[in-house]
Amino acid sequence: MLEEMGKAARAAARRLAAASEAQKNNALQMIAERIWQERAAILEANRADVQAAETAGLSAAMVERLTLNETRLQGTLTELGNVIRLPDPIGAVFDERTLPNGLRLRKQRVPLGVLAVIYESRPNVTVDAAGLALKTGNAVILRGGKETLRTNCALIAAARRALQDSPLPVEALQFIDNPDRALVTELLKMHAYIDMLIPRGGAALHQYCRENSLIPVITGGIGICHLFVDESADLSASLAVVRNAKIQRPTVCNALDTVLVHRAVAGAFLPALAERLLADGVSLRVDASAQAVLPPTADGKIQPAGEQDFDTEWLSLVLGVKVVANLDEAIDHIAQHSTGHSDGILTRNAENARRFTTLVDSAAVYVNASTRFTDGGQFGLGAEVAISTQRLHARGPMGLPELTSYKWVVEGDYHVRP
Amino acid sequence: MLEEMGKAARAAARRLAAASEAQKNNALQMIAERIWQERAAILEANRADVQAAETAGLSAAMVERLTLNETRLQGTLTELGNVIRLPDPIGAVFDERTLPNGLRLRKQRVPLGVLAVIYESRPNVTVDAAGLALKTGNAVILRGGKETLRTNCALIAAARRALQDSPLPVEALQFIDNPDRALVTELLKMHAYIDMLIPRGGAALHQYCRENSLIPVITGGIGICHLFVDESADLSASLAVVRNAKIQRPTVCNALDTVLVHRAVAGAFLPALAERLLADGVSLRVDASAQAVLPPTADGKIQPAGEQDFDTEWLSLVLGVKVVANLDEAIDHIAQHSTGHSDGILTRNAENARRFTTLVDSAAVYVNASTRFTDGGQFGLGAEVAISTQRLHARGPMGLPELTSYKWVVEGDYHVRP
Repeated sequence: MLEEMGKAARAAARRLAAASEAQKNNALQMIAERIWQERAAILEANRADVQAAETAGLSAAMVERLTLNETRLQGTLTELGNVIRLPDPIGAVFDERTLPNGLRLRKQRVPLGVLAVIYESRPNVTVDAAGLALKTGNAVILRGGKETLRTNCALIAAARRALQDSPLPVEALQFIDNPDRALVTELLKMHAYIDMLIPRGGAALHQYCRENSLIPVITGGIGICHLFVDESADLSASLAVVRNAKIQRPTVCNALDTVLVHRAVAGAFLPALAERLLADGVSLRVDASAQAVLPPTADGKIQPAGEQDFDTEWLSLVLGVKVVANLDEAIDHIAQHSTGHSDGILTRNAENARRFTTLVDSAAVYVNASTRFTDGGQFGLGAEVAISTQRLHARGPMGLPELTSYKWVVEGDYHVRP
Repeated sequence: MLEEMGKAARAAARRLAAASEAQKNNALQMIAERIWQERAAILEANRADVQAAETAGLSAAMVERLTLNETRLQGTLTELGNVIRLPDPIGAVFDERTLPNGLRLRKQRVPLGVLAVIYESRPNVTVDAAGLALKTGNAVILRGGKETLRTNCALIAAARRALQDSPLPVEALQFIDNPDRALVTELLKMHAYIDMLIPRGGAALHQYCRENSLIPVITGGIGICHLFVDESADLSASLAVVRNAKIQRPTVCNALDTVLVHRAVAGAFLPALAERLLADGVSLRVDASAQAVLPPTADGKIQPAGEQDFDTEWLSLVLGVKVVANLDEAIDHIAQHSTGHSDGILTRNAENARRFTTLVDSAAVYVNASTRFTDGGQFGLGAEVAISTQRLHARGPMGLPELTSYKWVVEGDYHVRP
């Protein structure tokens, strides 16, 4: 079955590659309208998913994530509207040159071809991923979580009915509606039909995809993030940045995990930080160097950092704290413990900022800003496909151009190679 | 052992990333000089490799490929000199922008990190790959063919002695000197230490790497290439282009495999083409549609095309010939049989050229030129790492920038996310 889907997607991708921006935007508009028309059936399907999830004893947080209502659905369609309004990168010409022999070369942006997206509970990803793929002329095969199977099937059915009335082929959007896990493994071997795999989920999903996929995978989503408070930093402003990075949304990958503090300012900075963060409900894991200023407390709110603590992505209101002797010790700590997602320095010293941004090798390196900005929307990309922490193809927040490839177009006057 | 090499390469890569252009160029210059100084030992090692290859009964072509002499070595070092003179892409800033909230964003080019190159017999690849990697600030782990083990060890020993006297870490250049094949399989699993794998060799090597590697692989090097002679083409100029694409160097991936001819000009074009190509020693595999004009001959120089012939990369003086009814049939044939390397149209019809370059989806798409131009040198890139036929990261001839990644550098004034 998957092979048939792959072949159909590949054929659809050929037609999509030649579709105009207007055709793609019209089709997306029709999808948005159709989903809204069919919202009663979609929300009905979602209620069944929610009920099944509750019966199965899924956590309240999980149930909350998979729940859809009219407001949430409207929000998802508003986002789809934003994608429609973004410029279409396909067809753009770049790196044009004429060689001394008269050959005219240019690169021309083309779709990647066929994408596969494997994701977990949130049903808005179904609409997001379909929109981003079709906008960039890619066919897409989606595989959602089994907890939202009914919701996803209803969303996809509406979207495909819309495609049927549109100039785009309906096979451009496909969904694996069989929850059997063996199909994921099979999907990962379909490199003949799929050009890029985007896992959207936790560390385990990313690792499974990387280890089992014959298709190029976009790895990312795991962030052990650092901020270094340098001796010249504005301490009161730094406290606000560290607090923002830790508590503004602690469950996401760009939230802060470890604060490194220059020892010259540890005495002035750490007690104020601890007072504020403890009041926010954060607990601190302090290494030996920081315990002189922040002694462990009986209630465990401040406790000695364990061996693994600086290699843990907290995703919760916990923060590692370490005092370092200087900039280079901070840089070394980050090299050893960062996942290469988002790391920053707070400083008034321009040379230290330069050294930090040169030597710290993460997808996003910050000077005097919260790590929470690593996000396609915050970076002004208009849309976010994923946040890549790998080094090939794309790094950091990926927007529409990162769902494309290019071809070389070479024009001559019956040129032959001497 | 490999894990130690990987760790050392990763540490060296961190230092390389901060090396200046002058430091990298100096080190490469020292490598070139040292190899030239030690040429007696290197050529001696090569004589032993050649002798062993002859004793083992390797083909004359194979022995020829692995043979080094002073002229060839000098040629390789001249190429290294050219790489030294290319601009260093590292540190270049692009996509700069200031967001409405005042955050200043830029992308900054950085090395990929650690490369691995697996290659076959030609020892010049050892110097090429080392030069391209170090020039772009990447550490590299090389694995050459066992037929040239002695030569490669002598080259690497000289290069590493040069690095010892240079500002770059000697671990930036490592070579697997154990010919055990199991080590290749082990190497392919070292995604913790290696960022990109470049196989340089035949289809079997590429397939093995794609199927077994946990490291992102640059796939390429396989070309089933087409030229379509449209009804409006200048036939005598087209004959010269088809001939060039087929015979100028038939053993390489961008050589022509199939010529497609519009039926309106088949009668005028094909007999002239056959006369010329048969004289060049080419034999033709003609499909049913072409046999009316080119009947099979008793000597087999013109024979009916077999079922697999249009899916064969000839790498020799054989050419598939097919007559098509129109442009779209040519485009469909290419979609079905091309490996996405290099395909072209010969035409005077600008609209047909536009349709062909839009709908044919290959790494290089030509209008009125030989497919033989698909090459980093011919495209003016100054150096060629590989020719990619995959769609992620880089497509077509890859130069120095394709050995790099980027990071986002974000500067603020203690910005927090609202």
